[in-house]
Amino acid sequence: MPDFPPLKNDLILRVARGESTKRTPVWMMRQAGRYLPEYQKVRSKHEFFDVVGTPELAAEVTIQPIDRFDLDAAIIFSDILVIPQALGLEVQMVKGKGPHFPEPLRSPSDMSRLTEEPDVDEELGHVYDALTLTRHELDGRVPLIGFSGAPWTLMAYMIEGGGSKNYKRARAWLYEAPDAAHSLLQQTTDVIVDYLIGQVRAGAQMLQVFDSWAGLFGPQTFRTFALPYLKQIAERVKKECPDVPMVVFAKGAHYALEDLVETEYEIIGLDWTMDPKAARLVVGERATLQGNLDPCTLYGDGETIRRAVQDMLAGFGSHRHIANLGHGMHPDHDPEHARIFVDSVHEVSEQMRGV
Amino acid sequence: MPDFPPLKNDLILRVARGESTKRTPVWMMRQAGRYLPEYQKVRSKHEFFDVVGTPELAAEVTIQPIDRFDLDAAIIFSDILVIPQALGLEVQMVKGKGPHFPEPLRSPSDMSRLTEEPDVDEELGHVYDALTLTRHELDGRVPLIGFSGAPWTLMAYMIEGGGSKNYKRARAWLYEAPDAAHSLLQQTTDVIVDYLIGQVRAGAQMLQVFDSWAGLFGPQTFRTFALPYLKQIAERVKKECPDVPMVVFAKGAHYALEDLVETEYEIIGLDWTMDPKAARLVVGERATLQGNLDPCTLYGDGETIRRAVQDMLAGFGSHRHIANLGHGMHPDHDPEHARIFVDSVHEVSEQMRGV
Repeated sequence: MPDFPPLKNDLILRVARGESTKRTPVWMMRQAGRYLPEYQKVRSKHEFFDVVGTPELAAEVTIQPIDRFDLDAAIIFSDILVIPQALGLEVQMVKGKGPHFPEPLRSPSDMSRLTEEPDVDEELGHVYDALTLTRHELDGRVPLIGFSGAPWTLMAYMIEGGGSKNYKRARAWLYEAPDAAHSLLQQTTDVIVDYLIGQVRAGAQMLQVFDSWAGLFGPQTFRTFALPYLKQIAERVKKECPDVPMVVFAKGAHYALEDLVETEYEIIGLDWTMDPKAARLVVGERATLQGNLDPCTLYGDGETIRRAVQDMLAGFGSHRHIANLGHGMHPDHDPEHARIFVDSVHEVSEQMRGV
Repeated sequence: MPDFPPLKNDLILRVARGESTKRTPVWMMRQAGRYLPEYQKVRSKHEFFDVVGTPELAAEVTIQPIDRFDLDAAIIFSDILVIPQALGLEVQMVKGKGPHFPEPLRSPSDMSRLTEEPDVDEELGHVYDALTLTRHELDGRVPLIGFSGAPWTLMAYMIEGGGSKNYKRARAWLYEAPDAAHSLLQQTTDVIVDYLIGQVRAGAQMLQVFDSWAGLFGPQTFRTFALPYLKQIAERVKKECPDVPMVVFAKGAHYALEDLVETEYEIIGLDWTMDPKAARLVVGERATLQGNLDPCTLYGDGETIRRAVQDMLAGFGSHRHIANLGHGMHPDHDPEHARIFVDSVHEVSEQMRGV
């Protein structure tokens, strides 16, 4: 393990473990990204996947929001689709359209095109290098989060070849070819496990698994095709890295809260459709909850944002909560509104505790 | 009221009212549509909105699935976007892409382009004519359902100009311009009320309100921008047509089940992410539940479909349930799998009752 600078703000790690803190920690999904002019400046000179693939650039954009806002965590600038890339599929980032796979998996027989046991260190070493460099450059200001896409979400992208209206090609596999689906999910899981462990060794202090398309399942299909792999990831990563908190963010999986509490993830990310108070009632103190302001709230004025933050914090309570948005920042968000969000979380949460 | 043929199968209307029946009634959202070769044949000769706008053609495609399957209801072939058309906006149906508004509402000032009090009978008389004709041609075989989009869903389309990844332009209005949003929602509500009452006068025997984009809300925004208008619609329509059962299908509004039970809608449509048993526990016998098989189940084989139907029926129970999919049929579904779904509902539900 490289000799990293000592951590000055461990708020988020303590809340992950269930400790009480003087204020609620806060970060924002996609906090490094297109809504920041300093990010746009980097992107004007480099393609998206070149930024991801060049440790110096990835470190630079990862730290940009930390320099600008009073955030309690950094998240490495990367993309969930580096895993399909490691599995041998080409992924392009098409301006204004998002990710595009020129040759997606159209049928189970296409799985033969995937690299069977990819050398994850070799294929994704650039992410590890970016984590190590960022951890040094952060100089202990805040913890650094690593992440991965979840097996189902990656499977959905690999089959659809990009964004899709209802992801029905991928969903069709669950019913038409369940054995092939399980095999693909297991193959992806194996890579994810190696990748997350590698990220911790390279410097990640917390890990998040993004199951962005969990909302396409119902409760039964989630229990069959998502939950077993999510559990397996946490169990296998924790065996190697027992002290690194893990977040599961299964967007849209409103029906799965009770299932997710029973896993080894310490933190459950919630999207903005979840009622904070109702979620807390189900979860109690058994897990830390992360989220969940509607990102569109940031289109409102300062008063609107502050009121929404108050409601959110009152709903989750002052214990075991990491404030975040319920989904990522949008490219047209005003950075000053992000600042109001971050600062409001700190101010209001300190008031709530009578600090 | 025209002199319509007597109804031979009133199963769905009785279940709507809470009566016990010998079997569970079933219909499918988008049961008239592209997965049927006989529909494709009509569409090969006529544009989408020409079929909607020509009563003879609309009646023909409405009845196609009734001729083919043992369904317990017909739903008039139309589109939720006829209301934006009545409000003066042009809507095109673009092949392979879906609806497209050449001039959507880009800002609240664009609302001045909307027809303030459209003559609904004049603008949408073709739908009324289609209902009357279909009701005659159905000859009482099954009840005929009329429908409308909900205010928020129509607002989302009018602002986005078509399908969208996250509908953030429309969602931004809720925070940036809440007064304009309420004004647009009220204007749309007024048209919807007239339109639904007109549909009943023309022959509709049950009504469904589709809030297809309710899942973009959280619980608070739903209560502010959707629920009051949905309630208003039911109250105002019921004042004129107290005996016509009404369905509210707020897709993705998992957080709103308790709110919806408190409205005047007798029937709550559920998408496939809702657990039937859990929903029944919340709702009890206070409402009829409609749904909710994952449409992708129909990509599976007969055994897969039958097993899923069994699980669904066991979850909802044999009282106050109308079987349906949790969303519409897909264009690439096999009609024979739709038949297995419909027949399985009847067979299994009769077995459950020991018929």
